[in-house]
Amino acid sequence: MSLETVLTRIDETLPDAVARLLDLLRIPSISTDPAYRESCAEAARWLVRELTDLGFSAALRPTSGHPMVVAHAPGAGRHILFYGHYDVQPVDPLSLWDRDPFAPQIEDTPRGKVIRARGASDDKGQLMTFIEACRAWKSVHGQLPGNLTIFLEGEEESGSPSLVPFMQENAAELTADLALICDTGLFADDQPAIVTMLRGLLGEELTITGPSKDLHSGMYGGAAINPVRVLARIIASLHDDTGRITLPGFYEGVQELPEQVRAQWQALAFDHARFLGDVGLTTPAGEQDRTPLEMIWSRPTCEVNGIWGGYTGDGFKTVLPAQAHAKISFRLVPGQDPLAIRASFRAHVQSLLPPDCRVEFHGHGASRASLMEISDPAFDAARAALTEEWGRLAAFVGCGGSIPIAGHFKTILGMDAMLIGFGRDDDQIHSPNEKYDLECFHKGIRSWVRVLDRIAG
Amino acid sequence: MSLETVLTRIDETLPDAVARLLDLLRIPSISTDPAYRESCAEAARWLVRELTDLGFSAALRPTSGHPMVVAHAPGAGRHILFYGHYDVQPVDPLSLWDRDPFAPQIEDTPRGKVIRARGASDDKGQLMTFIEACRAWKSVHGQLPGNLTIFLEGEEESGSPSLVPFMQENAAELTADLALICDTGLFADDQPAIVTMLRGLLGEELTITGPSKDLHSGMYGGAAINPVRVLARIIASLHDDTGRITLPGFYEGVQELPEQVRAQWQALAFDHARFLGDVGLTTPAGEQDRTPLEMIWSRPTCEVNGIWGGYTGDGFKTVLPAQAHAKISFRLVPGQDPLAIRASFRAHVQSLLPPDCRVEFHGHGASRASLMEISDPAFDAARAALTEEWGRLAAFVGCGGSIPIAGHFKTILGMDAMLIGFGRDDDQIHSPNEKYDLECFHKGIRSWVRVLDRIAG
Repeated sequence: MSLETVLTRIDETLPDAVARLLDLLRIPSISTDPAYRESCAEAARWLVRELTDLGFSAALRPTSGHPMVVAHAPGAGRHILFYGHYDVQPVDPLSLWDRDPFAPQIEDTPRGKVIRARGASDDKGQLMTFIEACRAWKSVHGQLPGNLTIFLEGEEESGSPSLVPFMQENAAELTADLALICDTGLFADDQPAIVTMLRGLLGEELTITGPSKDLHSGMYGGAAINPVRVLARIIASLHDDTGRITLPGFYEGVQELPEQVRAQWQALAFDHARFLGDVGLTTPAGEQDRTPLEMIWSRPTCEVNGIWGGYTGDGFKTVLPAQAHAKISFRLVPGQDPLAIRASFRAHVQSLLPPDCRVEFHGHGASRASLMEISDPAFDAARAALTEEWGRLAAFVGCGGSIPIAGHFKTILGMDAMLIGFGRDDDQIHSPNEKYDLECFHKGIRSWVRVLDRIAG
Repeated sequence: MSLETVLTRIDETLPDAVARLLDLLRIPSISTDPAYRESCAEAARWLVRELTDLGFSAALRPTSGHPMVVAHAPGAGRHILFYGHYDVQPVDPLSLWDRDPFAPQIEDTPRGKVIRARGASDDKGQLMTFIEACRAWKSVHGQLPGNLTIFLEGEEESGSPSLVPFMQENAAELTADLALICDTGLFADDQPAIVTMLRGLLGEELTITGPSKDLHSGMYGGAAINPVRVLARIIASLHDDTGRITLPGFYEGVQELPEQVRAQWQALAFDHARFLGDVGLTTPAGEQDRTPLEMIWSRPTCEVNGIWGGYTGDGFKTVLPAQAHAKISFRLVPGQDPLAIRASFRAHVQSLLPPDCRVEFHGHGASRASLMEISDPAFDAARAALTEEWGRLAAFVGCGGSIPIAGHFKTILGMDAMLIGFGRDDDQIHSPNEKYDLECFHKGIRSWVRVLDRIAG
């Protein structure tokens, strides 16, 4: 009954585990903003110290961006690599936060205790479920489970520019028999899930320039081209009236869902109305002939993530701006080639430019979608372990978010990945007031112990 | 030959006049930004001191916004009111300025000496031409010219919210026989102009809200409506492919130019290619069947002055924003009713909102266009005076900018206005590195003395 002993140890020492997580959450490791560079390094050093104390052979590994953390604990059995990321999203708009995003606290809410802070759910709370599982295991067994490597990244929220080179340079060291990734959510509040399909992501930033400088709209308005107007036309052209994306070749290679997957998804009884209602919406906004679950799991999208140009402060300024900017991203599904879509997008934008306008592009990542091989018995073992912990059948699901690491593990290291996470839909990741339920943290740690008990060693 | 004596006095004391202007330019009186409220008051106090020293009965007059400055110097003859504004535009993007916008300096340039600072041309340099003309006049004649009132506003760059109430409350005090307004430019580098037609201005700010909070584009992308996409469709819908504005009723009441005005404008031999070339453009972007001079003087326009939404910082953030914002303005021509166009715009926006989106509007000013009665002999007198000073025939011209004060003088005080100014096209008003040519300042002072010599007293 050593499994039960470990689980009990987790229950008894939960306050200490929470305190460690709060320490990590206090470090503002926003990877996309150069102002937080040192904070990212600090988070990496904090993790190296924790893992070293736990008995891993852990090191901070420099890159041209933020450092990686790699830790090994060799042992018997299948070599398992765990992946998480210690960097977090920016916090703006800061005014919508109820507290300092980097002064974490446990809050009582009507739905239970939550850990409130940027990164609480995505991904510091999640990665710590695995580290705390290792800690509890070791405190009972006297040694870490099986043959483990822990691999933590600090650029996941900023396009992972160093990830592929690092994996290529350290392929032998990082190649394991199976990867575990903890950066996803539960399917429902109490129903665990293993993600078997992930959308890819293509990010594009564009700047359209018209006049050589900002102009007075009275002196030049009417005669001079306004780049905001040009940008608006481009964005408006990307979808047709039925919600389909208009880029030539965009849907090339996109497969319809296999009937058995569609049937399993239907059996999940996904509550569309609640999913949209939780964020103030009633009407699915995507392709009109698709279900919302398809829209977010198995259909590609195009979104404007940011737009700016001209005067955006208080009051009014009658400027005719010289430039307009947008950040646009595409979520991709299996069969789509990110680079072909980037080329199609750029050609489409060029084709819509009027005289006197030019465009500059800046790519922000391009990753293919992933489709997991679930014939590996570890999938069924993990499903059983999760079902045991949560008391409801764990589901094989899709995921609308892009976790390019899963694709890289497959293409660079030839390694399958199992994505298990404990976030809830209302965690407000990437938004103000992000939180992670204390219950998810607690049961997440317990879940990993159960999974490791079945697949490690 | 007292006129010549005054002109000589101006030439001899120019350095002192420049020094006073630099003092005024050091005050960062940005009216649209609440952070500069005290600086606006400081500029008003500075002007009251100057005018009092000159012998005016001058006072700072509080409003619910920035104060007015009103100064009287009663005397014989026709009562003339001079108008200018002491507030300035914001300075962003500050990074494009070669110097601190509020640390004015005289710079040598290939085209002569310039006074470089925010407000140098618009409108502090221009209003000081008149005050310095009064100073030179008084120093020679021992008294101020004729029967003068000076009326200076501090909210011209922010929609003049206090102007109409103030004029209504002080109508008897402010009503003169003729208004002079110095806030316009020369027609060509050495050809003076009197503006007889001014476009009106309607400002609208709109915020489109979709989801109740910013969302993760992976979790919700495809299913949740993106308000930036909605805003882009709205902006793209405002013009058709020929550059015409599509709002229902927009062109109602718009008159074609009288043939004699069109002929006079053609005689001006406006250099379209240079006008556009100066700002990096080659192709007029307005209605395809209009000349560029019509586009900027006698045709209405719709411009996006600012747009923002989602993540606009460094790097990439895969947010699906809850809101998108734009500042949009319309330049109006004689015959258009600003309030009817506001209603048409708002109804058009509402008609394009998809389910789950709502819009909030915030109006920023609504002023009709103005058409001057040039039968008043003062127009010919001023034209002769300007022609004498500059050595080229002064032109009666249109102006694309909106100077609502001219319309208010007519509708509230029943007073005609003569708009004379000395700005040049390359003054970069409302843009970084604004300047005013020292020659314009100098000859502007001399011009006013010549005009006053013919029409005052």
